[in-house]
Amino acid sequence: MALTVVGSIAFDSVRTPFGERERMLGGAATHFALAASFFDEVRAVGPVGDDFGDGEYEILRNRGVVTDDIEHVPGGKTFFWAGRYERDVNIRHTLQTDLNVFEHFEPKLSQASQDADVLFLANIQPDLQRAVREQCTGARFVAMDSMNLWIDTARDSLVRAIGAVDLVLMNDAELRMLTGEPNLVVAAHRIMEHGPTIVVVKRGEYGAALFTGDDTFAMPALPIAEVRDPTGAGDSFAGGFLGFLDGLGAHSPSNGELRQAMVRGSALASFNVEDFGTERVRRLEREDIDTRVNAFKNLTHF
Amino acid sequence: MALTVVGSIAFDSVRTPFGERERMLGGAATHFALAASFFDEVRAVGPVGDDFGDGEYEILRNRGVVTDDIEHVPGGKTFFWAGRYERDVNIRHTLQTDLNVFEHFEPKLSQASQDADVLFLANIQPDLQRAVREQCTGARFVAMDSMNLWIDTARDSLVRAIGAVDLVLMNDAELRMLTGEPNLVVAAHRIMEHGPTIVVVKRGEYGAALFTGDDTFAMPALPIAEVRDPTGAGDSFAGGFLGFLDGLGAHSPSNGELRQAMVRGSALASFNVEDFGTERVRRLEREDIDTRVNAFKNLTHF
Repeated sequence: MALTVVGSIAFDSVRTPFGERERMLGGAATHFALAASFFDEVRAVGPVGDDFGDGEYEILRNRGVVTDDIEHVPGGKTFFWAGRYERDVNIRHTLQTDLNVFEHFEPKLSQASQDADVLFLANIQPDLQRAVREQCTGARFVAMDSMNLWIDTARDSLVRAIGAVDLVLMNDAELRMLTGEPNLVVAAHRIMEHGPTIVVVKRGEYGAALFTGDDTFAMPALPIAEVRDPTGAGDSFAGGFLGFLDGLGAHSPSNGELRQAMVRGSALASFNVEDFGTERVRRLEREDIDTRVNAFKNLTHF
Repeated sequence: MALTVVGSIAFDSVRTPFGERERMLGGAATHFALAASFFDEVRAVGPVGDDFGDGEYEILRNRGVVTDDIEHVPGGKTFFWAGRYERDVNIRHTLQTDLNVFEHFEPKLSQASQDADVLFLANIQPDLQRAVREQCTGARFVAMDSMNLWIDTARDSLVRAIGAVDLVLMNDAELRMLTGEPNLVVAAHRIMEHGPTIVVVKRGEYGAALFTGDDTFAMPALPIAEVRDPTGAGDSFAGGFLGFLDGLGAHSPSNGELRQAMVRGSALASFNVEDFGTERVRRLEREDIDTRVNAFKNLTHF
């Protein structure tokens, strides 16, 4: 099985109550790919600049991520984001966003990336998402994320992109904003009217919920006493979720398979927040994930 | 087994996107008692005025609630609250609060109420909570709720009250406010340092979490497509939770029993919001609760 993710590759400078890091490897495609790499072969597609070096490639390749479609833009600089989290790490302030090479990103996928069974369109401009989706004629399962910016500035494009995928993954505020519907159940079913058969709602510190035509599943986040850096948790969730499904070969996943995927996503997100950037996920072992799946069982079963 | 609840008995006028009601029976002790009545004998203690009539008593007595300690204050008026919920029913506006007889409430418990095995101190001034707790010398398990008002105006009293109970039930914002600790796990353990061995955190639309010395459990709320009126959901949760425990005779409850109680609390809260005021819980049958417990299993098990 093979999985392609298209999205940002970035340097992140982050300050939280537990420390700070300068110019760590980050970005949606990075967090996604590392998380998915525990279950599947992953190809990361995204642009980088001259400041992106062997050290960064190595982090990805050490986890088996295929980096052939990481596009090096000569003379360019990699997407840079700086942010600060309050003592309540659910509150985040963006200090700086330099889109750099990401600003004019036009995804070019190799045949191998186009041939992937599963495609994840991380948060990029929705017309680009749709263009990528159309290139990947062989994709048997396609999922997408988005953000409030596109709901504000490119709503029609976003709705068209949503119409071309199987699964939409969004946070609850975005879902409410996009549908104009405050009730989550109703909002999720509104999204399904556009085509997707599965909606996954990210709820930050509260976990995530899954809606399909005939199933509803909710998984609280694992309460963690020291959340060192939440950056990338949502993308790690998506990576664990889709990596697991593709690893199973589940391209028309059953409700049971989707539930198992939700738990893998939740597990990867929970590891993500335990340390800065990709630090925790990088040193993860496959057994750690199995142990954490049991921790989620202990958290929720009665 | 017997359970006493001390708290407000009120008339509520509520407007939500799904309709409105004038002067419905409400109040923390009411919602609690009706929810607990499915598992246990419940005595409600609270003050009412001349406007509290047979119809109101009947709602409680129809569910077997013992009303002997409902104190009728001659010439007084019952606590009145009016509120409005936005289209997003998580957002509530208080339009009017007339404390009336509740303002000078001094709980007087009959011997039977004092002898209850389990005592719930709903949200009243914390010195009163402690005075009631001291009257109930035979109580084997005592739980309390509180609110932001007392954290602001009577923090020392509140901490003393907390030191006298086994279980604290609060919403997450209040817990964070009281402890000054944004992380929920840390905040819950801070509360335990004052004496309680169990902390239950209410998270509104996201459900509830349970912390004990050696266990953590989280239960998402059941996603409901039409939340008609959320008023009283937290008290229905508490009633389902404590009623179930006392019904079991579990006065030093095991982690497993507490988990089961969390699910009963969640079930009663989920029914509470399906209709205005006490309307849904009033017409509930015991089998409905069992069915809903299975719905929570379906929601969370994988």
